[in-house]
Amino acid sequence: MAFRPLHDRVLVRRLEAEEKTAGGIIIPDSAKEKPSEGEVVAVGNGSKAEDGTVTALDVKAGDRVLFGKWSGTEVKIDGEDLIIMKESDIMGVLG
Amino acid sequence: MAFRPLHDRVLVRRLEAEEKTAGGIIIPDSAKEKPSEGEVVAVGNGSKAEDGTVTALDVKAGDRVLFGKWSGTEVKIDGEDLIIMKESDIMGVLG
Amino acid sequence: MAFRPLHDRVLVRRLEAEEKTAGGIIIPDSAKEKPSEGEVVAVGNGSKAEDGTVTALDVKAGDRVLFGKWSGTEVKIDGEDLIIMKESDIMGVLG
Amino acid sequence: MAFRPLHDRVLVRRLEAEEKTAGGIIIPDSAKEKPSEGEVVAVGNGSKAEDGTVTALDVKAGDRVLFGKWSGTEVKIDGEDLIIMKESDIMGVLG
Amino acid sequence: MAFRPLHDRVLVRRLEAEEKTAGGIIIPDSAKEKPSEGEVVAVGNGSKAEDGTVTALDVKAGDRVLFGKWSGTEVKIDGEDLIIMKESDIMGVLG
Amino acid sequence: MAFRPLHDRVLVRRLEAEEKTAGGIIIPDSAKEKPSEGEVVAVGNGSKAEDGTVTALDVKAGDRVLFGKWSGTEVKIDGEDLIIMKESDIMGVLG
Amino acid sequence: MAFRPLHDRVLVRRLEAEEKTAGGIIIPDSAKEKPSEGEVVAVGNGSKAEDGTVTALDVKAGDRVLFGKWSGTEVKIDGEDLIIMKESDIMGVLG
Repeated sequence: MAFRPLHDRVLVRRLEAEEKTAGGIIIPDSAKEKPSEGEVVAVGNGSKAEDGTVTALDVKAGDRVLFGKWSGTEVKIDGEDLIIMKESDIMGVLG
Repeated sequence: MAFRPLHDRVLVRRLEAEEKTAGGIIIPDSAKEKPSEGEVVAVGNGSKAEDGTVTALDVKAGDRVLFGKWSGTEVKIDGEDLIIMKESDIMGVLG
Repeated sequence: MAFRPLHDRVLVRRLEAEEKTAGGIIIPDSAKEKPSEGEVVAVGNGSKAEDGTVTALDVKAGDRVLFGKWSGTEVKIDGEDLIIMKESDIMGVLG
Repeated sequence: MAFRPLHDRVLVRRLEAEEKTAGGIIIPDSAKEKPSEGEVVAVGNGSKAEDGTVTALDVKAGDRVLFGKWSGTEVKIDGEDLIIMKESDIMGVLG
Repeated sequence: MAFRPLHDRVLVRRLEAEEKTAGGIIIPDSAKEKPSEGEVVAVGNGSKAEDGTVTALDVKAGDRVLFGKWSGTEVKIDGEDLIIMKESDIMGVLG
Repeated sequence: MAFRPLHDRVLVRRLEAEEKTAGGIIIPDSAKEKPSEGEVVAVGNGSKAEDGTVTALDVKAGDRVLFGKWSGTEVKIDGEDLIIMKESDIMGVLG
Repeated sequence: MAFRPLHDRVLVRRLEAEEKTAGGIIIPDSAKEKPSEGEVVAVGNGSKAEDGTVTALDVKAGDRVLFGKWSGTEVKIDGEDLIIMKESDIMGVLG
């Protein structure tokens, strides 16, 4: 079941800490406020200005991103736990 | 009795959890803050800029949407319990 | 005594629950936060942008509207209890 | 002693409840949050946009207006108790 | 020692209550929130918009003004107690 | 070691009360919320609008300024205690 | 593993107090709210206006900057502790 986030929202799959050692980021202690890492699954059309102008987002499906630990809302789609967040919750793109 | 939401508001029919297994989303534990699923019944003309420009919404009647569990206000129209919310409460469109 | 609401304000007559069964909306339990129904008596000229542009409102006298239960301020005009509210308090138009 | 309110401010003379029975508005119980009635004595040049554009106000000296009970600041000018408020405190114009 | 207020600030000399009987304003009870009266000593160049446009203020040196009792910050310049406030603290101009 | 404040920030050297008697300002009681006096050491390029337009500041190195007593952040540069603040913290320029 | 901060964010390496004596800044007592010093590692493309216009940042990789002690979020990239912050957290550039 596809899911199209609205406007400036992004659907993200959270990557667990172990998976990431190969990828170069070790976040051993998830208790601290360290950002989480994840992979972008789908992005909205873009943020909408007051006059209706739509501006595309700066992240795309497949990007590996860092985001605030408590950002977004958890949702289960096709049995998989994912997170819907705003692009502004994303701190940057890895790789 | 028709109901025309004003500006950027949307009228939504909440879909119960069971109904949705065929649709691909299982939200077994409604206690958690998981978003709710619903179907758009009617949409407003669009959001209105300060200079009066009206921008159409990005959801339409019939769309299956995910929205924040506590979003909007409940209303009974023609005996049916529905919810009036803002478009900004909607996280995305399914399918 | 006529009353001209200012800018984006609207004068509304609250419709009691019983009156509305014929009209199709049953709101049996007024304790819950269910919206109230009413009829628009008069509307302001419109909302005013910073540069002075005036944009007409999207409701007019005679419209049956739903609005937040605690919206607006009660006033008695010619002995009748009415409510002055902002257009943004109105959720939509019935019929 | 003349008094020129600045920008979007308005100088108002509060009309006592009794005076108003002839005028059509009875506000018997001043304890409740019912709006107050008054007469506009003087108005400012208008609200000023960020770029300096001045937009005239929609009320003028002599208008009978309804305003929020606690709006504005009391001042005594030439021995008379008056109120200085913003135009946005005024709900509408009577008559 | 001259003092040039910055942008939309105004330097004001507070006028004591007695001085004002001749001027027509009696504010006997300074305990209440009645506005204070004062004389403008110096004004800033004007308020600055985001794009740098400067808009002159609507009060000038010598104006007798009413301002909120607690507005601004007290400062001593050349041994005299004065007040620096924003133009938006000023309610209007007398005379 | 030079220090270039960013955007609309200003680097200020606080002038002690005694130094200022010659300069004409006596602020004997520093306990009260009286503004502090200082000398501008360096200024940022200017405030940046949303579209990138940069507008130069209205204070420059060498200006004697009054600023809110608690404004800004203390920093030690080349062993000297200075303050980094926003231009909006500055009330005006002396002399 | 490269890391591209998003929009107006900046990746910074915190410089410890000792390292900095050669650089001219002595911040002996880190308990006080004194700003921290660091080196910019990477910067985002720039801040994005509502209409999509991107404005480049005023700091670049290699700049030595002062920033608020509690600014930003700590992250570990390739085993190194770094900080992701907004450009607006940076007070100025040294040297």
